[in-house]
Amino acid sequence: MASPGDRIRVKTLTDEIEGILMPSYDQKSILIKLPNGYNVGYEEKEVLSVTLLEPKKTAAEKPLREITFRPGLKTIVILHTGGTIASKVDYKSGAVTAKFTAEDLLGMFPELGEIANIETELVSNMMSEDMLFSNYQNIAESIVHHAKKDIAGIIIGHGTDTLGFTAAALAFIFEKINIPILLVGSQRSSDRGSTDAAMNLICAAEFITKTDFAGVAVCMHHSASDDICAILPATKTRKMHTSRRDAFKAINTEPIAVVDYEKRKINFISKDYSRRGEDKVIISKDKFSEKVGLLKVHPNQDPKLFRFFADNYDAFVLEATGLGHAPTNLGKNLENYETIREFVKKGGIVAITSQCLYGAVHPSVYTNLRRLSEIGCIFCEDMLPETAFIKLAWLLGNYPKEKVEKLMAANLRGEIGERRELNKFCE
Amino acid sequence: MASPGDRIRVKTLTDEIEGILMPSYDQKSILIKLPNGYNVGYEEKEVLSVTLLEPKKTAAEKPLREITFRPGLKTIVILHTGGTIASKVDYKSGAVTAKFTAEDLLGMFPELGEIANIETELVSNMMSEDMLFSNYQNIAESIVHHAKKDIAGIIIGHGTDTLGFTAAALAFIFEKINIPILLVGSQRSSDRGSTDAAMNLICAAEFITKTDFAGVAVCMHHSASDDICAILPATKTRKMHTSRRDAFKAINTEPIAVVDYEKRKINFISKDYSRRGEDKVIISKDKFSEKVGLLKVHPNQDPKLFRFFADNYDAFVLEATGLGHAPTNLGKNLENYETIREFVKKGGIVAITSQCLYGAVHPSVYTNLRRLSEIGCIFCEDMLPETAFIKLAWLLGNYPKEKVEKLMAANLRGEIGERRELNKFCE
Repeated sequence: MASPGDRIRVKTLTDEIEGILMPSYDQKSILIKLPNGYNVGYEEKEVLSVTLLEPKKTAAEKPLREITFRPGLKTIVILHTGGTIASKVDYKSGAVTAKFTAEDLLGMFPELGEIANIETELVSNMMSEDMLFSNYQNIAESIVHHAKKDIAGIIIGHGTDTLGFTAAALAFIFEKINIPILLVGSQRSSDRGSTDAAMNLICAAEFITKTDFAGVAVCMHHSASDDICAILPATKTRKMHTSRRDAFKAINTEPIAVVDYEKRKINFISKDYSRRGEDKVIISKDKFSEKVGLLKVHPNQDPKLFRFFADNYDAFVLEATGLGHAPTNLGKNLENYETIREFVKKGGIVAITSQCLYGAVHPSVYTNLRRLSEIGCIFCEDMLPETAFIKLAWLLGNYPKEKVEKLMAANLRGEIGERRELNKFCE
Repeated sequence: MASPGDRIRVKTLTDEIEGILMPSYDQKSILIKLPNGYNVGYEEKEVLSVTLLEPKKTAAEKPLREITFRPGLKTIVILHTGGTIASKVDYKSGAVTAKFTAEDLLGMFPELGEIANIETELVSNMMSEDMLFSNYQNIAESIVHHAKKDIAGIIIGHGTDTLGFTAAALAFIFEKINIPILLVGSQRSSDRGSTDAAMNLICAAEFITKTDFAGVAVCMHHSASDDICAILPATKTRKMHTSRRDAFKAINTEPIAVVDYEKRKINFISKDYSRRGEDKVIISKDKFSEKVGLLKVHPNQDPKLFRFFADNYDAFVLEATGLGHAPTNLGKNLENYETIREFVKKGGIVAITSQCLYGAVHPSVYTNLRRLSEIGCIFCEDMLPETAFIKLAWLLGNYPKEKVEKLMAANLRGEIGERRELNKFCE
């Protein structure tokens, strides 16, 4: 059997790849670092064969920097869930430096050690597009475990693809938590010179140690240059570019704060955030309903698809057009109206958001909107469709149905904004 | 039976509303102008009863401006499809000024008459969220009819919600057309002081009469102020705000041109557009396949939904995360991988776009992307998911399958950009 650091060839049902075996976070999967610097994971059951090509060059392994606890510094716990932010191979030596110990991490990002004492935990090691609700629960469990200790805050290393979804999920899970929890990703691999990993991590550590912020937020590049990071609200942030470093944007609101990387200066843009207090009680609700869907509408949509959602789920988010319209008023689209009407009548929940992303839906500007509101659809104002999906699944996991309907329309974690835009529209 | 201009009460299965009866574009539907200035339409079969409240005040009707053909001016045809852009009631008199004749239109927007001779046609009168492929075909038919005459160009009045989809559809339909076709909407009703209808129409008329542009584009507010309109590319434009006047944005590219409303000055931003030539031949392909879907992915997605798409359609667009990832690699998500693999193996087509909207998908940055590419998924570079849906349905309507796969990955109407972002990513 190969051990971490060995160069191996893996055959699966679909692939044959060569790379360096990485430490796995569980017994059921193996993780391979490819020559291009990215990782790929397989479930054990997918793997047909593993061939050892070259054993780990132990002699060449660099001595890791020894870590001494520095009493003057606060402690930050870094949880790793996956993505490319914090795994690295020394290609010359073949040494693996991604056991995700504090020693590894400080070897990669030595500056972190000047800001705080670092503890680490490997929660999972996966690409974020495969996240399930059970992964959110694992992360939450780990947060609860560490938050009970005397720490300044938690950084969660996360793949960028669904980082916004996870941020929303953790924000809803933690009704009350007295420390900052910052999700951090990187758009370029830590193996590359152009990586944004170090700056994002360091700005997150600065923000955690120097402010009184409590709760969940995202820390990513604010601009394409390596100068400023933004602290972004967990329920209103979205990946808005496939590859730029400053892909993450606050939608329908501003960043909470910006962190100047060079000057190590923090400026709050919003004063409306929760602050650390004396009360260390954690209130977490981590259940999610599996019976929730997300349906994006478009012209000439198949009425069978609406029926699929009504037949298979207890609730779904409509990612509607404009102010909340759906194809429900003419010709074959009338079937969709009937499907929704019957679904809601039988106890189903339909939450309406807009695929415009910016701006708010509104139940009364047009009669077609009123028709959807009158049959019980919930208009989610300026809530992001992705946040609405996470919220709806979370609400149904933790509350009875009547309460879900009320809470869906209410602002629980900043997911509904100030209605400034709505007022502007109604001028 | 009530006639246009009468104030009526309409009872339907679900609604009871009062308003002024508007001229209908067909025999199967009735259209009512509500007191708030918006229109609502019902199919005849939905209507339970119509009560006449107050007959049209014919005496009070304003005399319409008489139109004389001015030989010095070019001719623009304005097609109305619906939305609030060009329908208006004089509430004091009850007079309806939305028969959509040239006289009506010039009564509402007299400045248009200074720019061009105006002809009009009412193609449909519907909210755009209900558009079907058959509506695109009706509009295309009408365009072909008018384009054969000696006109400067065509303006299409359209509801804003799916204006971007229709623009893409018309761009694909018209492989060759020698006149400009501009889609114009308004975010605020023509009945309101704050309406953007007049400026959008006038800028479109200026652009049509003063430039050599040919083909399909969108003309909407460039900024929130009433100063500049943008001429936006048909296949790369998206409604990015539910209510702002400047909701329409070119994604992954720039506007083609801007039109200064005050100065009546046009500045081209791109030189890369098709120009009017001598050849007046029109090549139009207006078929669409009904068996095409759009599937937006998210965490914890139900494998049954992937199977629904594979079982019910010949092709579908995956609105994936980031660079084109889908939940296909771990745990229950492996089922999705198998579903896609079998679907493509049996002849299905899967086209991959990104829900980031900005940036491009890429089939080889990560192994998980390569896995999707290797089983035959088509990566659509920086194509918008909405444009990819329209294009895929259009391709399958007009070409054999092998050709569809090739054309889907090719740039036909500017829907795939210059790959600048891709190169930047690969630095």
